[in-house]
Amino acid sequence: MNLTQKILSSHLVEGEMIKGQEIAIKIDQTLTQDSTGTMAYLQLEALGIDRVKTELSVAYIDHNTLQQGPENADDHRYIQTVAAKYGIYFSRPGNGICHQVHLERFGRPGKTLLGSDSHTPTAGGLGMLAIGAGGLDVALAMAGEPYRIIMPSIVNVRLTGKLRPWVSAKDVILELLRRLTVKGGVGKIFEYSGDGVKTLSVPERATIANMGAELGATTSIFPSDDRTYEFLKAQGRENTFVPLAADEDAEYDEVIEINLDELEPLVALPHSPDNVVKVKDAGRPKVDQVAIGSCTNSSYADLMKVASILKGKVIPEHVSLVISPGSRQVLNMLAKNGALSDLILAGARILESACGPCIGMGQAPATGAISIRTFNRNFYGRSGTKSASVYLVSPEVAAAAALTGYLIDPRELGEAPLVPYVEKFEINDNMIIKPPENREKVEIIKGPNIKPFPLNTPLSDIEKRVLIKVGDDITTDHIMPSNAKLLPLRSNVPELAKHCFEIIDENFSKRAIEWGGGIIVGGSNYGQGSSREHAALAPLQLGVKAVIAKSFARIHKANLINSGILPLTFVNERDYKDIEVGDVLKIENAVEQVRRGGRITVKNQTKGTTFEVDLEVSDRNREVLIAGGMINYVKSKNTKKTG
Amino acid sequence: MNLTQKILSSHLVEGEMIKGQEIAIKIDQTLTQDSTGTMAYLQLEALGIDRVKTELSVAYIDHNTLQQGPENADDHRYIQTVAAKYGIYFSRPGNGICHQVHLERFGRPGKTLLGSDSHTPTAGGLGMLAIGAGGLDVALAMAGEPYRIIMPSIVNVRLTGKLRPWVSAKDVILELLRRLTVKGGVGKIFEYSGDGVKTLSVPERATIANMGAELGATTSIFPSDDRTYEFLKAQGRENTFVPLAADEDAEYDEVIEINLDELEPLVALPHSPDNVVKVKDAGRPKVDQVAIGSCTNSSYADLMKVASILKGKVIPEHVSLVISPGSRQVLNMLAKNGALSDLILAGARILESACGPCIGMGQAPATGAISIRTFNRNFYGRSGTKSASVYLVSPEVAAAAALTGYLIDPRELGEAPLVPYVEKFEINDNMIIKPPENREKVEIIKGPNIKPFPLNTPLSDIEKRVLIKVGDDITTDHIMPSNAKLLPLRSNVPELAKHCFEIIDENFSKRAIEWGGGIIVGGSNYGQGSSREHAALAPLQLGVKAVIAKSFARIHKANLINSGILPLTFVNERDYKDIEVGDVLKIENAVEQVRRGGRITVKNQTKGTTFEVDLEVSDRNREVLIAGGMINYVKSKNTKKTG
Repeated sequence: MNLTQKILSSHLVEGEMIKGQEIAIKIDQTLTQDSTGTMAYLQLEALGIDRVKTELSVAYIDHNTLQQGPENADDHRYIQTVAAKYGIYFSRPGNGICHQVHLERFGRPGKTLLGSDSHTPTAGGLGMLAIGAGGLDVALAMAGEPYRIIMPSIVNVRLTGKLRPWVSAKDVILELLRRLTVKGGVGKIFEYSGDGVKTLSVPERATIANMGAELGATTSIFPSDDRTYEFLKAQGRENTFVPLAADEDAEYDEVIEINLDELEPLVALPHSPDNVVKVKDAGRPKVDQVAIGSCTNSSYADLMKVASILKGKVIPEHVSLVISPGSRQVLNMLAKNGALSDLILAGARILESACGPCIGMGQAPATGAISIRTFNRNFYGRSGTKSASVYLVSPEVAAAAALTGYLIDPRELGEAPLVPYVEKFEINDNMIIKPPENREKVEIIKGPNIKPFPLNTPLSDIEKRVLIKVGDDITTDHIMPSNAKLLPLRSNVPELAKHCFEIIDENFSKRAIEWGGGIIVGGSNYGQGSSREHAALAPLQLGVKAVIAKSFARIHKANLINSGILPLTFVNERDYKDIEVGDVLKIENAVEQVRRGGRITVKNQTKGTTFEVDLEVSDRNREVLIAGGMINYVKSKNTKKTG
Repeated sequence: MNLTQKILSSHLVEGEMIKGQEIAIKIDQTLTQDSTGTMAYLQLEALGIDRVKTELSVAYIDHNTLQQGPENADDHRYIQTVAAKYGIYFSRPGNGICHQVHLERFGRPGKTLLGSDSHTPTAGGLGMLAIGAGGLDVALAMAGEPYRIIMPSIVNVRLTGKLRPWVSAKDVILELLRRLTVKGGVGKIFEYSGDGVKTLSVPERATIANMGAELGATTSIFPSDDRTYEFLKAQGRENTFVPLAADEDAEYDEVIEINLDELEPLVALPHSPDNVVKVKDAGRPKVDQVAIGSCTNSSYADLMKVASILKGKVIPEHVSLVISPGSRQVLNMLAKNGALSDLILAGARILESACGPCIGMGQAPATGAISIRTFNRNFYGRSGTKSASVYLVSPEVAAAAALTGYLIDPRELGEAPLVPYVEKFEINDNMIIKPPENREKVEIIKGPNIKPFPLNTPLSDIEKRVLIKVGDDITTDHIMPSNAKLLPLRSNVPELAKHCFEIIDENFSKRAIEWGGGIIVGGSNYGQGSSREHAALAPLQLGVKAVIAKSFARIHKANLINSGILPLTFVNERDYKDIEVGDVLKIENAVEQVRRGGRITVKNQTKGTTFEVDLEVSDRNREVLIAGGMINYVKSKNTKKTG
């Protein structure tokens, strides 16, 4: 077996490990960050469990740390208290980026990790199977539910040789992005092996695993070996070490070879992480900003390399250099050993240990500026400045750009910085709050903008009026618009729902409330676009019981099922035109019809007609719909187990 | 003479130092920060000089350092390039708060300083006469114009004794605020003397002078003595030292005595800096946030005291502690000597060296939170959270609150921290950019949102239509609204002007453009409210030549004069009602009528009537109006001088 199969098989709860088939695996650890965490914990609360069922769950605050209004601090306080209540560790704001801290203090080889952040695979550097998922998936995992995925194909990336001076782990993943593109990893897990792996430290492996997310991969994983032991020991956690590797004769769906000796410093040009060329071929543009940090490249070794390149020198007048250390451990070690002073004296602006500019939280470049970043994404506009050009590079290349003011091949600078070997990291976990012994006493504090998650009721017969009738290709942006005004309402579905469909029909929500809920009638490809859950939650909040459409977009259909809203399709599309807003539609024996499968009969009471609809979902989904949505389904299942 | 009189007399250009009379003084140094600086430099550019005429001018970036969009970085780049062009020093973002850095690196005893920030008096701690002013005033000072003020009354604050342990300079100024209130210093300069002064270091004196601004004072000043020499020497600037003090027999308008021995730790309760009580009487509230920094309390000594109180300890789980060091010098020294690590390990979140939370740039407290801050203002809502309660205290009291989680009298903690004596500060000015030798080559870079300042034309006969007729008590918020959407347009008057009067009449700006400018007719108290210059600049941009009203608010009238717009008042208020929008009004021989003084005749061409108006302004103002506003006036005066 390969390493992925070993970990999957030891966590398999349902299904067979056959490519393309659904499997369910046990989740050992979860993590959340604050921008997705608030909703995940509201969902966890709705699940009605007493405490998390995982071996370890950690709630990190690293995204919304600028705090321009009370909403962020309110979210932090909510997450801190809900974490204490449910037995979850809480990493305080300023303690660092979730993936960096998780690697340092919590990750364990051979375990599974589900996180509500797309860069959760970072922990693959430690030999974990670490997957990013939506908030509800993570909430379900915390409640002890297995995580369901389609068995991916396993790609073996065989590394040979050794990185040359000025070439770094970042260049390994940039090379893969160059070869495979941002779609090249979809439905795949990248498993690294070969002699080259031994030359890479855990933080270097983490850089590679982290940015596997940009390939679209399910995750990436490295073996757990002597270098893993060395890292865990330096973190005082050698007791969590287990050796792990693929069997000698393991089989893979695909093999990719990378000779580390042959790599050169690379750069992803604007505006895509796979737009990769050699730095020396990038045209030497003049640089306005250099930003170092993010979950990809903010380890102690990364920043020590930068400090050693900049020590005793000073950046040019036209460059703004900003550095966000990945964790408090990193920041403190730099402060203690003098490297932070070296960075400050070279002209670096030191930001808080957090995601910061990588997620557009500050440091938007000037108009038309060229920004060189050690981050993982350079999508158009993500920096906060649409006219800016963002280039993704290694810390070495970033430091060379900061020093010279141009994007140059760092080998021009001469001797490469030594990568420090760390025998022992400075360990201080006092900004990680352990869940208290006495969780009963914990009061969950919800700021005025945080409202409970809407819950459906178990399915019963439906007799409701048609609230709205829309055409083809309606997007989730039509259903639940997203803009600066509405984003702070993401934790407040009752308030957000007032804006449901407002682009198309400003009276929709008012009507839905007056009519006591109802039914939506849609055309084909209903719910396309963004995957946002809120396009199902807002209708749920307003009492929508079913959507009858010509066809559905896949993810929105899944979100409707999770919300307990029936996603029904016309058997005869011509029935669409006979329905009008205000018509009373009736589905009798709803539970029986949904459970049975096959066509469902709908009576139009107003018109005195009858038509048929399909409900094309799995048997499990039928049970979810009958229970009134995923949360009720899991709750009732747990009650049955324990009751 | 007292010290103030000595400095004023050595800088007097016009007038006599008689209380209540206008005097004009030469300005030696200027400073700007970035939130007011962009407009000040646009005005400087419009003045048409070649380089600044001051001994020293410095442009600091310390306010808008979060950079949520390109506007901030564009402003920084504009200020950097305009500074280079005009011979101005540029202190880069991250180099620190203007007042802290100016004290460290530029302030000189006996000199005058004009700054576009209300806390400019901080430099009074060094024996400077340092005054805060509007952007145009600072631009004029850079152009060599004297600064005009009404001769203030001079208050002598006699300090005796010595501060006891745990009592600090902050408590001295809080005591004055307690006694005098936030209006107690209006029209006054506070001059400190007495044996107690000798016990205070320059940074301590600066804390007191800084927050004299909250008394409403024109400025505050300390003598220049051995302690001043000691500070300047430690900054490597002893060559700028001159001893300065009041004559033994100096006279003052008022004398206040403060015995330092008798002071106790004080706190300004929400929501005013003069709402001062003893900390021990403040009811020991539980604390949610502690914020240390700002131009009032972020010196090396302040942060060393905090570090020594927190060393080896950890803040409680319910407290968020944020620290913004006052300057890069302070941050670097803390990094080098280990104190920064002490702060980090105690749980402090280290923010960039900048104004930060003091000006609401981040770290808004949670809803209903209690925030203990070493800042200078605790106005309602200023923190970014309207429901928060902000308390102003010394660094010692803030550290005690961070450590215990309650607002306690720090004397409960036992032995007080030693205030470190600094023989030599770490000096590194590489983030302060000197103006280049070859200023001709400098290209001023204006981002797309930065547009040249509007300029009027010299006065000529007026024949324009009435654009709008408004009632009594129109505020500057009616004339030029201010909100989140419009604030980024403050550097873009052409775009901003499109929103002029939009609250009252959304077609105003369109009409003004179609009609080629015009005249505004107002009621009584026209232009009351905020002092914003833009309420005159937007009408100027739109071609408004005169405002005829029943009466004017004082500051808006001054702003109209600066813009070259005639502020005319009806001789007979009943003439107001005969005028309608669209009427063509004509002022013939305008230059002669304005220069002559007395009543001015206005013909209503449409109605065929004639009425009289007054122009109640000084002779100098008449010349400003004839020149087409202050900038044209100064330009033409300079041309005459040099031509």
